[in-house]
Amino acid sequence: MKVDPQCSYCLLSRVHYESELSTDDEILIGRIMQECIRVLNDTYAPGVPAASVSTSMHQRAYELLNDSDPYRDMKEVCNRTAENVFPIAMSMVYDGDPSDNELFRRAVLAAVIGNFFDFGVMGLEVPISLFDETFRQHFIRGLNIDDTSRMFDMLDNVVYIADNCGEILLDTLVFDIIKKLGGHVTLVVRGKPILTDVTMKDIIELGIDEKVDRVLTTGSGSIGVDMSQAPQELLDAFRDASLIISKGMANYETLTEHEMGPIAYLLKAKCKPVARHIGVDVGHSVARLCE
Amino acid sequence: MKVDPQCSYCLLSRVHYESELSTDDEILIGRIMQECIRVLNDTYAPGVPAASVSTSMHQRAYELLNDSDPYRDMKEVCNRTAENVFPIAMSMVYDGDPSDNELFRRAVLAAVIGNFFDFGVMGLEVPISLFDETFRQHFIRGLNIDDTSRMFDMLDNVVYIADNCGEILLDTLVFDIIKKLGGHVTLVVRGKPILTDVTMKDIIELGIDEKVDRVLTTGSGSIGVDMSQAPQELLDAFRDASLIISKGMANYETLTEHEMGPIAYLLKAKCKPVARHIGVDVGHSVARLCE
Repeated sequence: MKVDPQCSYCLLSRVHYESELSTDDEILIGRIMQECIRVLNDTYAPGVPAASVSTSMHQRAYELLNDSDPYRDMKEVCNRTAENVFPIAMSMVYDGDPSDNELFRRAVLAAVIGNFFDFGVMGLEVPISLFDETFRQHFIRGLNIDDTSRMFDMLDNVVYIADNCGEILLDTLVFDIIKKLGGHVTLVVRGKPILTDVTMKDIIELGIDEKVDRVLTTGSGSIGVDMSQAPQELLDAFRDASLIISKGMANYETLTEHEMGPIAYLLKAKCKPVARHIGVDVGHSVARLCE
Repeated sequence: MKVDPQCSYCLLSRVHYESELSTDDEILIGRIMQECIRVLNDTYAPGVPAASVSTSMHQRAYELLNDSDPYRDMKEVCNRTAENVFPIAMSMVYDGDPSDNELFRRAVLAAVIGNFFDFGVMGLEVPISLFDETFRQHFIRGLNIDDTSRMFDMLDNVVYIADNCGEILLDTLVFDIIKKLGGHVTLVVRGKPILTDVTMKDIIELGIDEKVDRVLTTGSGSIGVDMSQAPQELLDAFRDASLIISKGMANYETLTEHEMGPIAYLLKAKCKPVARHIGVDVGHSVARLCE
C-alpha cells in the first residue's frame, strides 16, 4: 500500500505520542519532532510504500529517545485488557456447539475485533473500560468482508503473521481451531520491538509458543514485514504455506506491496487510507482472502 | 506563542482538509502535502513563533491550489449556523434585565462560545446540529477565566480584532453593549481570506460595518496579526486604544509575541498547546485581561 496524505500527520502524532510515553523532557521531544519532520520530508512522496516512511520515522524517534521499546508499559496494558475480555470472547465463539466451519469464522471474527487493542492510531480508539461492551457489539455485527469459508479448506500449513500485544491472546482462538482440524501453525512476530507489536519475548512470557508449532520472526523491528530483511526460513515458510494469514494494518500495508499468496488479511480498518484501499468503511471488520 | 509539537500534525491535517475543500484532484493534493511537508521542515524549530510555520504552510497550499479562498463555502455554513443560534444567544444575554456590567460579561461569554464556530481544528469540533444545545450548555457553564469586570472600565475606545465568520455575528452583542455605554469600536479583520476568518467583504455582506465606528484590516492574509505587515492606521489604532480585544486562538498566538496592551484575549481553548499556554483545560472559555 502506498503512502496517503493522512499518513503524514498520523505518523507525526504517533511519534509525539511515543515520545511522551518514553520521556517528559520537552526539549528532547521538540528535537525529536523536528528530526522526524526532516525524515518525513526526506521519505514522503506520492507513490512510495507507506512503510518506508513510517519505519524510518519510528526508528529515528527510538534512536533519539535512546529507548528500544517506548510502548513497554502500553503492551502490558494491552495484554491485561485482552486477558479480561478473553473469557467473553471464548464463550461467544464456542456458544451453541457450532460446526468447525462456523467455529473458524467466529474465531477469526474475535481475532479481528482484537485488532482494536492497538492504541495510538489517530481517530479510532476504544477506551479500555468499554472494551467488553465494544467486543460484544462488534461480534454481533459480524464480518463486513467474510472469506472465511474459502480459507477453511486451506488450513493445513498456516503462516500466521501476528500484529499487536493484547490481540495476540484472541489470535489463539484461531490457532486452537486450526490445530483441532489437524493443521500446522507457524507464528511470525517482529524481530525487535516496534509500536505495541508482539515480539518473541512477549510470546514466551504469555506462553503462546506452546499453542503453535513454531515461532519465527520478521528479522527486524520494521513496521509490518520488511521482505528485504526477512530471514530465509521465513521466506521458505511463506513459499510452503497453504495459507498466509496477515493480521492488522501494518502487515497489510507491507505485504500488499508483494506478489504472494494465498494470503488472508484479517483486520479492523482503523483509518481512512486503509479502509479506502480495501473498499470498506472505517471501523469495518475484514477477513479477505487474496489467492 | 511558540510552536508546539502538536502544531506540526495539526497543520498538516488542516492543509489536507482545505485541499479537499478546494479540489478532488488527488494528484494535486499529494503534491500539496509533499510541498507543505517541505515548508514545515523549513520553518519548524522549537522556539519559533507558531504563526511563522502556519502562515507559510497555508499560503503555499493556497498558491498550489490556485484558490484564494478554499473555505468560501464553509464560511457561508458558519454564518448560516450562527444566524440560527443568534436569537437564543440574544435572549440568554438580555434575560432578566441585567446590569450593564453583567450584560457585558454575558455578551463576552456569548462571543467566546461563538469561537466554537471554527471548523477544522483537530480534536474539538461541534456538529452543526448540536450547536444550539452546545451553546446553552456552555453559556450555563460560564467563563473559566473571567476578567470582564476589569475590562468594563476600559471600553471608551476599543480595537476589536475579529476571528472567524459565524462567530462574528455573536461578536456584535459585544459591540452593542460597548456602543450603548458610549464607547468607540474599531473592528479589525483580515486583509485577505485565510481559513474561515472574517474579511472586509464578509463584514460588508453581513452589514456589520454599520454596527461599529470603523473597520480596518490586518493588511495581510497571514494567520492572526502579522505586525510586520500591519498598516500604519492599525498600529496607530493599537497605540490609541483604551482596550484591545483579541478574539480566538490565531490572534492569541500572534499577539502574545508582542508587548502591547491593555489587551483582552477572548477565546475557546480548542487545542492543548493553547490551553496549556493559558493554563486552562481544552474546551474552557477564556476572557483574560493582560495590562
